[in-house]
Amino acid sequence: MSAENKAPLVGIIMGSESDMPAMEPCMKQLEEFGVPYEVKVASAHRKPAEVHEWASTAVDRGIRVIVAAAGKAAHLGGVVAAYTPNPVITVPMKTSDLGGLDSLLSMVQMPSGVPVACVAINGAKNAAILAVQMLGTGCDEARQKIVDFKEGMANA
Amino acid sequence: MSAENKAPLVGIIMGSESDMPAMEPCMKQLEEFGVPYEVKVASAHRKPAEVHEWASTAVDRGIRVIVAAAGKAAHLGGVVAAYTPNPVITVPMKTSDLGGLDSLLSMVQMPSGVPVACVAINGAKNAAILAVQMLGTGCDEARQKIVDFKEGMANA
Amino acid sequence: MSAENKAPLVGIIMGSESDMPAMEPCMKQLEEFGVPYEVKVASAHRKPAEVHEWASTAVDRGIRVIVAAAGKAAHLGGVVAAYTPNPVITVPMKTSDLGGLDSLLSMVQMPSGVPVACVAINGAKNAAILAVQMLGTGCDEARQKIVDFKEGMANA
Amino acid sequence: MSAENKAPLVGIIMGSESDMPAMEPCMKQLEEFGVPYEVKVASAHRKPAEVHEWASTAVDRGIRVIVAAAGKAAHLGGVVAAYTPNPVITVPMKTSDLGGLDSLLSMVQMPSGVPVACVAINGAKNAAILAVQMLGTGCDEARQKIVDFKEGMANA
Amino acid sequence: MSAENKAPLVGIIMGSESDMPAMEPCMKQLEEFGVPYEVKVASAHRKPAEVHEWASTAVDRGIRVIVAAAGKAAHLGGVVAAYTPNPVITVPMKTSDLGGLDSLLSMVQMPSGVPVACVAINGAKNAAILAVQMLGTGCDEARQKIVDFKEGMANA
Amino acid sequence: MSAENKAPLVGIIMGSESDMPAMEPCMKQLEEFGVPYEVKVASAHRKPAEVHEWASTAVDRGIRVIVAAAGKAAHLGGVVAAYTPNPVITVPMKTSDLGGLDSLLSMVQMPSGVPVACVAINGAKNAAILAVQMLGTGCDEARQKIVDFKEGMANA
Amino acid sequence: MSAENKAPLVGIIMGSESDMPAMEPCMKQLEEFGVPYEVKVASAHRKPAEVHEWASTAVDRGIRVIVAAAGKAAHLGGVVAAYTPNPVITVPMKTSDLGGLDSLLSMVQMPSGVPVACVAINGAKNAAILAVQMLGTGCDEARQKIVDFKEGMANA
Amino acid sequence: MSAENKAPLVGIIMGSESDMPAMEPCMKQLEEFGVPYEVKVASAHRKPAEVHEWASTAVDRGIRVIVAAAGKAAHLGGVVAAYTPNPVITVPMKTSDLGGLDSLLSMVQMPSGVPVACVAINGAKNAAILAVQMLGTGCDEARQKIVDFKEGMANA
Repeated sequence: MSAENKAPLVGIIMGSESDMPAMEPCMKQLEEFGVPYEVKVASAHRKPAEVHEWASTAVDRGIRVIVAAAGKAAHLGGVVAAYTPNPVITVPMKTSDLGGLDSLLSMVQMPSGVPVACVAINGAKNAAILAVQMLGTGCDEARQKIVDFKEGMANA
Repeated sequence: MSAENKAPLVGIIMGSESDMPAMEPCMKQLEEFGVPYEVKVASAHRKPAEVHEWASTAVDRGIRVIVAAAGKAAHLGGVVAAYTPNPVITVPMKTSDLGGLDSLLSMVQMPSGVPVACVAINGAKNAAILAVQMLGTGCDEARQKIVDFKEGMANA
Repeated sequence: MSAENKAPLVGIIMGSESDMPAMEPCMKQLEEFGVPYEVKVASAHRKPAEVHEWASTAVDRGIRVIVAAAGKAAHLGGVVAAYTPNPVITVPMKTSDLGGLDSLLSMVQMPSGVPVACVAINGAKNAAILAVQMLGTGCDEARQKIVDFKEGMANA
Repeated sequence: MSAENKAPLVGIIMGSESDMPAMEPCMKQLEEFGVPYEVKVASAHRKPAEVHEWASTAVDRGIRVIVAAAGKAAHLGGVVAAYTPNPVITVPMKTSDLGGLDSLLSMVQMPSGVPVACVAINGAKNAAILAVQMLGTGCDEARQKIVDFKEGMANA
Repeated sequence: MSAENKAPLVGIIMGSESDMPAMEPCMKQLEEFGVPYEVKVASAHRKPAEVHEWASTAVDRGIRVIVAAAGKAAHLGGVVAAYTPNPVITVPMKTSDLGGLDSLLSMVQMPSGVPVACVAINGAKNAAILAVQMLGTGCDEARQKIVDFKEGMANA
Repeated sequence: MSAENKAPLVGIIMGSESDMPAMEPCMKQLEEFGVPYEVKVASAHRKPAEVHEWASTAVDRGIRVIVAAAGKAAHLGGVVAAYTPNPVITVPMKTSDLGGLDSLLSMVQMPSGVPVACVAINGAKNAAILAVQMLGTGCDEARQKIVDFKEGMANA
Repeated sequence: MSAENKAPLVGIIMGSESDMPAMEPCMKQLEEFGVPYEVKVASAHRKPAEVHEWASTAVDRGIRVIVAAAGKAAHLGGVVAAYTPNPVITVPMKTSDLGGLDSLLSMVQMPSGVPVACVAINGAKNAAILAVQMLGTGCDEARQKIVDFKEGMANA
Repeated sequence: MSAENKAPLVGIIMGSESDMPAMEPCMKQLEEFGVPYEVKVASAHRKPAEVHEWASTAVDRGIRVIVAAAGKAAHLGGVVAAYTPNPVITVPMKTSDLGGLDSLLSMVQMPSGVPVACVAINGAKNAAILAVQMLGTGCDEARQKIVDFKEGMANA
């Protein structure tokens, strides 16, 4: 599961190029875990067909966990979740007016049948850790990475 | 623009059969205005393809205004708006835990490029009036209905 | 519907000169759509007669959609809506203390009978797009502008 | 200042007949104080001309304090305040979805130049007491009523 | 009622010296109205006896309206209102963490029997206007000042 | 420290007789701990002198911890804290409109210099436990009661 | 992965017996998926050692996903996540005063390093679906259950 | 109880080194009171065993009051309270997105059986004063420090 020359296991999608700086800790953490990932920028509202296509084919591309980041009326995670059997981790982006409460409620309050796994506002690093925890349900190597990571924190 | 034997001008969509009672004032008001409408029940998350199809073909079916009602992380309006050039009126449904603040923020805080026209929580009747106001931008008969309706209120 | 030498179809009103910078994306977007508009600055509370006059005569001036921007206890949209059969799009202004939650609730929670079409906090650009969508209910040219605009976003 | 056969000093206005039960403690308290009042039911949005007329002529009718009760996007107090030099006490009505936070923010966050005096959500009785306190600024008899009332509470 | 050589009619109290800049528009506006006032800085919690004394003797000093400004768990207005028959206008101070929602709710939600007249967060100028409106209930000169002030705004 | 024939160590005060049912778990828990207490009902706003007297003399009556319960703009705890060196535990009462968020912020956000110890909305039982924990700082018997109580919970 | 005679893959823990009714849809859904689970009731605050033990040994018992439900200051999910490398899905319980906003923020806003996967307030059924989605990252059979489940919803 | 050469009576714990500047007023105030304290930095989530150990042994180290500061989903106070019979004062840290409302609700809404004593967002100085008030329940010297401190404020 080393990151080089490997097909991505985690697909990261964000609604806008402007979300990139807030999401960098996610990518950095995945790299530290050695988990290969791909990144996509596409708005669920401005480029619905592109999001539809990306989400629908994720499993076939080998993606096993999706991380979706968006702000305000943040529908991206829900839209992606509608088109994939993969678990979808959502990262509500902080907003300049309501602080991200709008993004958070738009993501976490998913109606019955189509869950997402919501992390904290701007919780990009935690999204990466959670993604690897999910992979760890079926992969001892991934779970061991988490065990080591937690040990590292305890000893820091 | 009388309601009988006419192709619908307004398309009403709601995320769940359980939204029907809260949306009845919308239909009743459209009937009082004599504006023909169609009704669809389909969740953006549970039946994304069906919603996609319905929204994408709305203009060709003669629909000129869409009303979308949903609750919690209410993505339906945004998803529909992504697939149609029609104006989309959203009705945030009251929720049992947060009172509908979640539905409201999920609908009204639409990011740049794809607006919706949000009315009050459970504002189904107002959605109908707003729909006819929109039709009135290009139809003197519809605008006159609003003039008469407002006069009726003033004299009530 | 080109913007030059044409009577305005959209009337923009804002409660204070200080709202102007936040509303500029609305005017810019209308210009890009080639939709003629007029702009008025008048507070519903400080200049009620002026607002009353402006709203009451809007239809006769050829206005078909109104955009109203205000902050805090933002009554402007509701006051305008009381005096015109035109659809009124409201833009809640961000506030320095509550982030615009006050403006938003003051606008979106309109009581039964007199709706407004609320967009996001500081959602000036979306107000312009929504205005053209409304015009598109009765004008194929306007609707085509939206179709083209959405195509442009999808291909960006 | 006894209530019988006297011109009203306090004008009570509410946006809807449905606000009447919540406002009864206001009238009852004014009666206990022996302060004559008048009551008007008229929505700022549905009957704007009627509200305008009522507010504009209040001073000439002898009204010295106005109490305005409304719910949701509660513009009534602000609209009345725009048309009268009298102080306007606003009573935000409890709402079934947001508990009255919408009414409260719509009333209390008045922009500069046109204040209202906001009391608690459903604070009808306090509105009456505050009205008499205001009258007491220029009337020893009214102020004495408040002194007595406070003494009564302290000894209850 | 000119401000020079006159006993103050309005008493302004604030919980902390740090509230002074936010309250300056109140004093400036009273000066423009020519209404004499006094200013006191004393916390209800840190100097309760001093606040008690100041409030209890306000009527005897000729004070007819009190303006109380405080932030966070803003008890000052309620404490003052407990000790005086004068109407008490409260100005909730903006706070650095919750934006002033804490100050607002601590002031506006007064329980039955002891009202305050709450204005907007940091609404210092409006507090002055409201104070003069209150004085106007028993003073034609004060009411005329408000009439003139409103006319000035309408013509600005 | 048995409850019989002993001077009270904990003073419970509440703003209204209507708070009594919500506060009964506090008294019941103190009885189970065998900690003597006294109960007072007095509003900080309606009976300020009585509250002042009660709080000022608490230490001399042997009271070492105070529990204050109130709702809405809940000033009681702050007012009591202003007049006593004792620690004051505040219990924000649930309210019918804002759920107790108003009571909570009015209590917990105390400004610098005069703290209170706030527990959860309607957290009456926890107030009793916290009171005994406070007594336990200087009394091994009281601290042992908490040790036993925690052991009881762990084994329940 | 049929539920009979199999070691549990999902561990459900809740803070109080009173959370059981709200969590039943989680268990029912896992049964429909045929995914074996175990259930534990233990408060992070009242029985910390028991929670510590349960969480620390979960991996060794074969648990691969944990679902934690709690209300108010809902620390259970975070406490469990501190002691296990498994992904932890948290279900914020609706509360009678703040509607569950307290539970939600206490769960979703996890600080950096130790994520949880938060679902909607009372989103018990979605927690089960998400758990199986997580298992599906390493198990084709589990992922196929989700594919079938989504197909079932689309055709309902 | 002078601070030099004495075993600490107050134990301060914070979730992150980044909380230190916000907590400095707590330490400074304890020093002014001459109350010895110890400081610990350890996250309840990243270093659970270390927190467990620190809290469990606090009584034996002579600690009589604990102050716990944390932000976001602030579980530290509750976790510490689970392991000690000492009273635990919690200081919710201001957060950059929700202003500290998340920290506040995560701390103050403790479920029944395990209270904490919550002070204001970033209320570090008040935590110190409250700690000494608690010590004052069993120590005349500590109570006298509070009496003197309050007198100092009243005369400032």
